[in-house]
Parts: sequence; structure tokens; C-alpha cells
Amino acid sequence: MNIVFSRDSQVRGMDNTVANTEKYFGQFCSLLAAYTRKTARLRNKADQLVKQLIDFANSENPELRATMRGFAEDLAKVQDYRQAQVERLETKVVNPLKLYGAQIKQTRAEIKKFKRVQNREIKQLEKLEKLRQKSPWDRQMISQAETRVQRAAMDSSRTTLQLEETVDAFQRQKLKDLQTFFSNFVTIEMVFHAKALEVYSSAFQTLEKYDLERDLQDFRAKMQGVYGHYNTQPLANTNPSPSVLQSLASQGTLQVQLYRANEDPEHPHANHGRFSLHDVEGQSAHCVCGQGGYLMLPGHSL
Amino acid sequence: MNIVFSRDSQVRGMDNTVANTEKYFGQFCSLLAAYTRKTARLRNKADQLVKQLIDFANSENPELRATMRGFAEDLAKVQDYRQAQVERLETKVVNPLKLYGAQIKQTRAEIKKFKRVQNREIKQLEKLEKLRQKSPWDRQMISQAETRVQRAAMDSSRTTLQLEETVDAFQRQKLKDLQTFFSNFVTIEMVFHAKALEVYSSAFQTLEKYDLERDLQDFRAKMQGVYGHYNTQPLANTNPSPSVLQSLASQGTLQVQLYRANEDPEHPHANHGRFSLHDVEGQSAHCVCGQGGYLMLPGHSL
Repeated sequence: MNIVFSRDSQVRGMDNTVANTEKYFGQFCSLLAAYTRKTARLRNKADQLVKQLIDFANSENPELRATMRGFAEDLAKVQDYRQAQVERLETKVVNPLKLYGAQIKQTRAEIKKFKRVQNREIKQLEKLEKLRQKSPWDRQMISQAETRVQRAAMDSSRTTLQLEETVDAFQRQKLKDLQTFFSNFVTIEMVFHAKALEVYSSAFQTLEKYDLERDLQDFRAKMQGVYGHYNTQPLANTNPSPSVLQSLASQGTLQVQLYRANEDPEHPHANHGRFSLHDVEGQSAHCVCGQGGYLMLPGHSL
Repeated sequence: MNIVFSRDSQVRGMDNTVANTEKYFGQFCSLLAAYTRKTARLRNKADQLVKQLIDFANSENPELRATMRGFAEDLAKVQDYRQAQVERLETKVVNPLKLYGAQIKQTRAEIKKFKRVQNREIKQLEKLEKLRQKSPWDRQMISQAETRVQRAAMDSSRTTLQLEETVDAFQRQKLKDLQTFFSNFVTIEMVFHAKALEVYSSAFQTLEKYDLERDLQDFRAKMQGVYGHYNTQPLANTNPSPSVLQSLASQGTLQVQLYRANEDPEHPHANHGRFSLHDVEGQSAHCVCGQGGYLMLPGHSL
């Protein structure tokens, strides 16, 4: 009888083992999946930063442009390694953990099967017990019942052995996989951190090498260049068109080269001048018009 | 006159420089803030994993418990370094970038101020121009207007110099800060990756050292221990109470030690037996009852 009870307690132990595994492996799976997703989001943000760094670089002087591009490229490299990290975490950690559910279900089924067999044995024992109590004199009936009990007991002990093997194999697999999953996790993380460290080291040097003074000289030259080549004339001699002055005051978007044409105080509107119009970006905008007595011709640097 | 135009274009150049800085530094600020937030979220997920690993460890055998705890501690260490990374990114990269807005506003104000002065100069020029056209003979008026123009021009050139200095300082500061911010970013990342690599290396060894076979032996011992010490008796001799069998079949949660009391086939209900009840967790549950003719007494290992 006690064998029955002991088997029952054994099944309880096995049930607990499997239930515990199901609970924690499920949590590990969802947490590591979330960890991987968050890593992917971090990669996305860094990719956006890379894009902005390149846009910015293209809007700057050569020295800073080169530095920012170099830095952006390194930052992009780190994100490539992060992408590899994400893919590896999915294939080597998260997916295997997902597949674990099936293995657990199988073991659970084995345990259920054993329980059925065990219950049969218990029922036979109950019948035998009743018989003994109701008609203890009926030796034949009792011996038949005992035979059924023994048969059920044999089934039960056979399935017990099977179950023991199943759960032992399950536990071995579980421990082995646990070690594998987390070793994979650590290896994947290590590879990423090592690569990131390597790339950032070069990024750091790129930023260190940046020559601020040289860049500042470029900037000053550019600022000077914007207005550096005009042959100034005494203000008293100038007589720009009010319309031009107006457009300047209002838009303030034009570089204008003005040359006095023949001046006739009697016919102020007979003035003729040449304009070369450039917007600051340096693209030329040319037009020819007679209105206001000004002839606009294709501009060129003077 | 062309000086006026050139100054105008100079201001345009300065405006663009400041606007460009405002645009990109703003983007860098928000992207790096987002990057920092995502890093913090990654830390949170890993912290949850640490918690689950410790819970799991406490539910396992000594060998696996020690390994999982060691691994969880290392994973927690990495998150501490990640926390430091988050704080450093905020204080050394994101916050300084936030403060940049003020600096930009100040420079913008300087440029506006210059524009006002420049417009005054242009207005004086316009007046002079009109005068020349309407009453070119009125030399006195013209000379007065020319004086006003020259005064306005002097103001304008003075503020131009101020503006040049302001924008030059702004550009220098911008380039310097840009280098500082991203150098800080790279340094902070490098420190984190180096530390993470160090900690994960030890975590990897912890997992490698794990002795699966020893753990499996513990597991088997535990499984055996659950039912390992019962002196089996021939089934024919057993007569458990149907109620006990029932409770077993239904709950299946008890280890029961059954000893036959004096058996009297004539009075089957006069049977007396002793039960010691243990749930599988090994906690004892004792009770005394006469019902069903069974006396339950405090149980002890036999």
C-alpha cells in the first residue's frame, strides 16, 4: 500500500519540478524577448542620431564635416553590431526558450498517464478492501481481487519506471539547456560589448583629432568671403535705386553689385545699372528687366 | 552703398550659422535624450530578469542555486553600470545640450539688434536719395542728409564689428562644445562597455563551472528521498481505509504510513491503525480522530 502512497508523492515531486520549470522558463522567455526588443529600440534611436549627424556634417565646413562623418560612421558600425546582437539573442536564446513549452507539455502528458494507471491500482485496492470487509470468508473472490490488484500494481510500477526516466531526462535537458541559454546570452553580450568598445575607441580618436582652430579659420574666411570682395566707394557718390534699397531692407536676401551708369540729375529715372544677384547659398538668379530703368544681366564674381 | 549690401549678406551668413546650430543641436538633444531613456528601459528589463533569476535560484538545488545566484549578481552589476551610464549621459551630454538654447537666443538677439541699426542706415540712404532726386540743387540739405547717412554708417559698422565678435565667439563655443559633448558620449559608452565586458566574462565562467551531473544527483536523491524509506509489505496484507484511499485518489497529496492493527474478520470495523501524515513539502499535519475506527497520532520518520 505504502508503495502507492510513495508513488503518489513521487508524482507530486515530478509535477512540481515540471510546473516550476514551466513557470520560470516562461518568465525568462518573455523577459529576454522584451530585453531584445528594447535593445532593438536603442539601435533605432542611435540610427536616427547617425542620420542627423551626417545631415549636420554636410552642412558644415570641411574640417568638422570630416570629423562628424567619421564619428557618424563609427556610431553606425556600433548599431550594426547591435543589430547582430539582436538577431543572435532571438535565434540563440529567445526562440529556444519558446520551443521549451512543447517539451514541458510532453512531460506533463507522461505524468497524467501515470496518474491514470495509479488510480486504476487504487480502485482495485478499494474493491479488494470492500470485499474483505463485506465477505471476508469468500476466499476465492478475495484471491481474484488480489490478482487484479497485483496486475494493476505491476502496470503502475512499470509506468513509474518510465516516468522516472522521462522526468530524469527532462531535468537533465532542462539543466543543460539553462546553462546553454544563459551562456549564449552572455557570449552574445560579450561579443557586442567588445566590438562596441573597439569602435568607440576609434571614434574617440576621430573626435580628438578634430582641429577646431582650422575649422574656425574656414568659418571666418567664409564669413569674410561673403562680403570680402567689394570695392568700396565714398557714400556721397552712391545713388542706389530706392526700390533696391527697399527690397534689401524688406527681404535682406541679396548681394548686389551696383555700378553707376551715366548719371543725369535732370533725368533721375534714366539711370542704368548692372546688377548681379546671388542668394547667400551662392546659386545665381538672373533676369532681364527694363522696369525702373535697371538692366539685370547674368552675374559673375567680380 | 555696397558696404550696406555686404553687411546685409554677412548677417544672412551669421543668421544661417545660428539657425543651423539651433536646428541640429535641438535634434541631437532630443535624440540623445531618447537614447538615454531607451537605455534606462533596457536596464529596467534586465533588472526584472535579475529578480526572476534569483526567485528561480531559490527554488532549485544547491548547485544550480549557487550558479544562478552568481549569474544574477553579475547581471545586476551590469545594470548598475548601465544606471551610471544613464546618469552620466544626462548630466554630461543631454543637459548641456538643453542649455544651448539660451546661448542661441542671445546670439539671435545680437543679430536682430544689428539689423535695426542697419535699417536705420538704409533709411538715411533712402532720404538722401530722394533729396538728390527732388532737389539736387539744394546742396545744404544734401550735405546734412549725407552727414546723417555717415553717422548711421558709423553706428552700423561699429555694431557690425560687435556682431562679428559675437558670432565668432558663438562659432568657437559651438565647435568646442560639439567636440566635448560627443567625446563625453563616447567616453561614457566606452566605460560602460568595458565594465560590462569585464562582468560578463566572470558571469561566463560562473556558468561554465556549473556541475550538471552533481545537480542531477541531488535531484535524483530528492526524488528518491520522497519515497525512498518505506518498508514494503505484501499487498495481500494491506487494508487501508477507503476514506484514506479516496483522499489519496482525489488529492494525491499524502504520504501515509500504515500499520495493521489487530485484525478481526468478524468485526471489520473494529480495525485500528496508526497514520502519520506528511505533505510532500515535509511539513507535518497531525490530528486525532476516532471516525472510521482509525487513530491518527503525531507522525515521525520511521
